[in-house]
Amino acid sequence: MKVLVLGAGQLARMMALAGAPLNIKISAYDVRSGKIVHPLTQEVLGQGLENGIADADVITAEFEHIAPDILSVCQASGRFYPGEEAILTGGDRRKEKTLLDRAGVNNARYQVIENRDDYDAAIAKIGLPLILKSALDGYDGKGQWRLKTDRDIDAVWQDIGQFLKTSPQGSRQCVIAEEFVPFDREVSLIGARNAQGELEIYPLTENIHTNGILSVSISAGENDAVQSQAEAMFKSVADTLNYVGVLAIEFFDVDGTLMVNEIAPRVHNSGHWTQQGADVCQFENHLRAVCDLPLGSAKRIRPTAMINIVGNVTVPTSVMHQAHVHWYDKEPRPGRKIGHINLCADSASTLGDTLDSIAELLVDDEFPALKLAADNLR
Amino acid sequence: MKVLVLGAGQLARMMALAGAPLNIKISAYDVRSGKIVHPLTQEVLGQGLENGIADADVITAEFEHIAPDILSVCQASGRFYPGEEAILTGGDRRKEKTLLDRAGVNNARYQVIENRDDYDAAIAKIGLPLILKSALDGYDGKGQWRLKTDRDIDAVWQDIGQFLKTSPQGSRQCVIAEEFVPFDREVSLIGARNAQGELEIYPLTENIHTNGILSVSISAGENDAVQSQAEAMFKSVADTLNYVGVLAIEFFDVDGTLMVNEIAPRVHNSGHWTQQGADVCQFENHLRAVCDLPLGSAKRIRPTAMINIVGNVTVPTSVMHQAHVHWYDKEPRPGRKIGHINLCADSASTLGDTLDSIAELLVDDEFPALKLAADNLR
Repeated sequence: MKVLVLGAGQLARMMALAGAPLNIKISAYDVRSGKIVHPLTQEVLGQGLENGIADADVITAEFEHIAPDILSVCQASGRFYPGEEAILTGGDRRKEKTLLDRAGVNNARYQVIENRDDYDAAIAKIGLPLILKSALDGYDGKGQWRLKTDRDIDAVWQDIGQFLKTSPQGSRQCVIAEEFVPFDREVSLIGARNAQGELEIYPLTENIHTNGILSVSISAGENDAVQSQAEAMFKSVADTLNYVGVLAIEFFDVDGTLMVNEIAPRVHNSGHWTQQGADVCQFENHLRAVCDLPLGSAKRIRPTAMINIVGNVTVPTSVMHQAHVHWYDKEPRPGRKIGHINLCADSASTLGDTLDSIAELLVDDEFPALKLAADNLR
Repeated sequence: MKVLVLGAGQLARMMALAGAPLNIKISAYDVRSGKIVHPLTQEVLGQGLENGIADADVITAEFEHIAPDILSVCQASGRFYPGEEAILTGGDRRKEKTLLDRAGVNNARYQVIENRDDYDAAIAKIGLPLILKSALDGYDGKGQWRLKTDRDIDAVWQDIGQFLKTSPQGSRQCVIAEEFVPFDREVSLIGARNAQGELEIYPLTENIHTNGILSVSISAGENDAVQSQAEAMFKSVADTLNYVGVLAIEFFDVDGTLMVNEIAPRVHNSGHWTQQGADVCQFENHLRAVCDLPLGSAKRIRPTAMINIVGNVTVPTSVMHQAHVHWYDKEPRPGRKIGHINLCADSASTLGDTLDSIAELLVDDEFPALKLAADNLR
């Protein structure tokens, strides 16, 4: 089986590693260079999307910010999963909010803003504070505003108005205003759905972000009621999209009630713990789903924490005594994810201890939130 | 870190998969073609052993039947682990028996046979029945004899004498006569030793062979006394060789007392269960050892069975509901290992049930010993 992945980053790389034992051969379409490469070795296998599609049994994607013309070419092949609509929805906050409403899942009140009138209406309808996000290309903190007080209304609008005017996506771009949600924590649910509508859903993961970038994800035990809420919403969203593949949903937890923050139509950073912590990892289950193979068990086999390696930081090899290190073979740049560390333990509290001892080996500023995450576990 | 593996088969392939997350890049020297290839993609990376060595930080091997001139070139690099002596010992039954005696570990009584006088002396000293094996290239059942009764003495010698005369290895070849050991079962121990002499040893694996080929390996719980015996012998053998890397030792279990049958100076088929069943698998631990990185935990995380896929057999995808399938991307040929299936469970008896239900999906003749293995677990 041959699978072409749109995008040649670490997610395609980890799909290649997970697919090899299944004799699934991954090639990756680099949307910038137009080259088809092997995502592990970077060997150039060909040139051009059409050639990549012609040589593949199945097409999928590792990210959602993909030009619509590329998506429609893939969709026309009839072998693209999770498909054009799911990817477009994941990459467009306006479509995403519409989907969440259509699926009937709990999400923050919002207003679409295309002009000053919409902006004023949002303020009147939702009230302050407001979170404002560009609908397209909102990845990792670009195009975000926060409106806290009345006296900033004009200044923030100046910024947003300018942003909308200069947006390269033109009239496809807009801004979504949302109520500020005073959440207790952020959790995410990763699951796979196949073409028959069968689901394999992992236990919830608790996430700690620092400056908009995921620092730590932990799956170590979860309240059944919260897990059930998340799974019900997952099923609604996935069924509404007739989704095939791995889907990630990020939630705000407000006093035990979940509210969907956003979805990612792909394998997800907060699911990397499944490589060591679950029976079948998210990368393999994504491939099983898109290749129409039986889904594998998403059961957690042990409490596991994932620590992101971001930018030019120091990871002493001594962490390997207790940890699984996953490098992406990428040059370090500020804010760039270049690897992750998975830590496993027999219980949540032991995982807290292990996280603490790993934190001792790392620089606090380079690996934020480890102590906090460890304390949460005990 | 770049590692050159002598041999480009499935063991090099699985090292490549285990090494990628550590940013360890594996290239493989195909001893037949003289090509350097990527063991996963088969991309040709170069030509000739010297070029392969020049480009590598570390050299290792995936098999032990390697021409001595190749081994001495690798040894001269000063970066070859476990090194010439260990590989030669694994590939030469005479050296191996000498090692076992030197390490002071329990092994079957034997006699080296180079001529008819030695043969007669072996019969007189050890008695019948006798197992006779060629010292070199004894892999998977070639060059083996069994002498059961006095009346076969001359006929068996005719065969052996002819074999010795025509052996391509000339005077390096000989035959080892051994006492017949009426063992209850075969078990093996896989472990890693680093350059500092530190060890990480996996729990014992019980193996069932069919016609000299491994059918099933199970690690699901072991008598502490038996495990201790095996570990003590492992340490003696590994220390005697000043071994660096993963070493496998096969034992006969005779009423709770272990006797070393043979060693393999490499990752081993009976250690494939560690991919799903152990914290850090044998492939990663081998690379950690030869690259002088900290060894990872060899702890078993759940009872696991490995089933070999041998020859042109049928594996329905329905096994994937309960199993991890590992294909090697090899053309099926009779007797050729082309993949394996790992099965995990929460307990030994549940593993027995799972094995039974997988056996229902497979053809008995193609996958022998599954029912027997399942019964042993309950």
